Amino acid sequence: MEKLKRNERIAAIIKILGDQPNKIFTLNYFTEKFAAAKSTISEDIMVVKQSMEKMKLGKIQTISGAAGGVKFIPYTTKEQNKQILQSICNHLGEKERILPGGFLYMADIIYSPQMIHQLGEVFASQFNYKEVDYIITVETKGIPLALMVAKAMNLPLVILRRDSKVTEGSTVSINYVSGSSKKMQRMSLARRAIKPNSKVIIIDDFMKAGGTAKGMMDMMKEFDTQVEGIGVLIATREPQEKLVEDYIPLLILEEVEEKSEAVEIYPNPALI
Amino acid sequence: MEKLKRNERIAAIIKILGDQPNKIFTLNYFTEKFAAAKSTISEDIMVVKQSMEKMKLGKIQTISGAAGGVKFIPYTTKEQNKQILQSICNHLGEKERILPGGFLYMADIIYSPQMIHQLGEVFASQFNYKEVDYIITVETKGIPLALMVAKAMNLPLVILRRDSKVTEGSTVSINYVSGSSKKMQRMSLARRAIKPNSKVIIIDDFMKAGGTAKGMMDMMKEFDTQVEGIGVLIATREPQEKLVEDYIPLLILEEVEEKSEAVEIYPNPALI
Repeated sequence: MEKLKRNERIAAIIKILGDQPNKIFTLNYFTEKFAAAKSTISEDIMVVKQSMEKMKLGKIQTISGAAGGVKFIPYTTKEQNKQILQSICNHLGEKERILPGGFLYMADIIYSPQMIHQLGEVFASQFNYKEVDYIITVETKGIPLALMVAKAMNLPLVILRRDSKVTEGSTVSINYVSGSSKKMQRMSLARRAIKPNSKVIIIDDFMKAGGTAKGMMDMMKEFDTQVEGIGVLIATREPQEKLVEDYIPLLILEEVEEKSEAVEIYPNPALI
Repeated sequence: MEKLKRNERIAAIIKILGDQPNKIFTLNYFTEKFAAAKSTISEDIMVVKQSMEKMKLGKIQTISGAAGGVKFIPYTTKEQNKQILQSICNHLGEKERILPGGFLYMADIIYSPQMIHQLGEVFASQFNYKEVDYIITVETKGIPLALMVAKAMNLPLVILRRDSKVTEGSTVSINYVSGSSKKMQRMSLARRAIKPNSKVIIIDDFMKAGGTAKGMMDMMKEFDTQVEGIGVLIATREPQEKLVEDYIPLLILEEVEEKSEAVEIYPNPALI
């Protein structure tokens, strides 16, 4: 292998760490990859750490001991949150998005890899996920966002289905009542998808009354699983009393005025 | 702002480029961010480029001219493909995955952010997506993979739904016949999701007879859209005659022997 210069090693190290956030790489991994001494790699990592801190691009954490190594932790500041969330509000506030019934067309935003990649990092900065085992969502529209959160936290993603499928093996199904439409709905999950006594964070795109989030919490009870947090991209301000208590919305939707074509949506003040 | 050393600038530049593959950043973006001269930034970028090439971590492309700048292009070698795809085959070959009816439990693999992040880069290395406008998939299991492909290629993701939803506005719906089960199915898409005369790549998790892929192609006709390519994670070897002609599978599933608990699955020989 061609020997790399320090500059080049540093570029390669942050590329590898940044591609797999929250994964611990041992120093040995890098000493072997670059045929360099441990002390050399340690110095390289110090440079990477300083760079990320100075430019506010995230955090580098070194872990000592036998299982030690180094990892990249996504982190966004309040100032960065403000910029990211305000930009999404500007998009969502476009009056062309208003649909009959006061719904908002959001597919292009919530499926945009770049936008939700950033939102994944915003969520990773809000939750304590050290002991969390899975990110949970329910099909369909929350999946891209939940995947990006899972990637930022280095956790497996579990998707609850609306129906049980032959390709999932034995499943658990529950019925729940959608909070706003009062319609009876059903969700199911493969028995083997979650190990017992796990801890999870629930991620979804939209919360009105909180019926779906409540349904997911009920499902988690069936798996003897602890819900450590709930995150949603958008929560409506009304009803203020939702069916779940603790949740973190990134954006608050005040109202969609179909007649005057006005959308009032703003970042969660606690995050900016 | 605290002035960065060259080493630190290099780390920050590759972090920024790598986080948003295929997005062009102007030199001005970096000169302003680091308060450094253009010639300095150009030298930094050369170091990053060399590092990525030597370590086979992807490609850095510089674009000259008024709309010029620099971008990171994900790229995997045949050797890397072999390692990535063989590792997934080893997981999928575990006999505990075999379900009644000869199905394979795959949810943990196809929802694993780390694994499908790599698969997104493998697909990005196989397709020419320079003039492609969208990545298309149909709910549900292909969504995470399609999102990672979309992220690697810096393209918007479009998800076809099984039913039309009130939150999507006016939609186009088609019926299609699932190739293997001969069941009539339905998919729908919001009118506004795709601009006319676009080019798309279709991504899905699994192809047997190709009925779903054919359905997606039919849907694209309704949008006057050109399908430039089809990529699937797994294609079954039988039937060899599928309903679509050109497609790139990453893995070939020979057979699932329920009785002898054997799964024969291997990487597409053309990719390794």
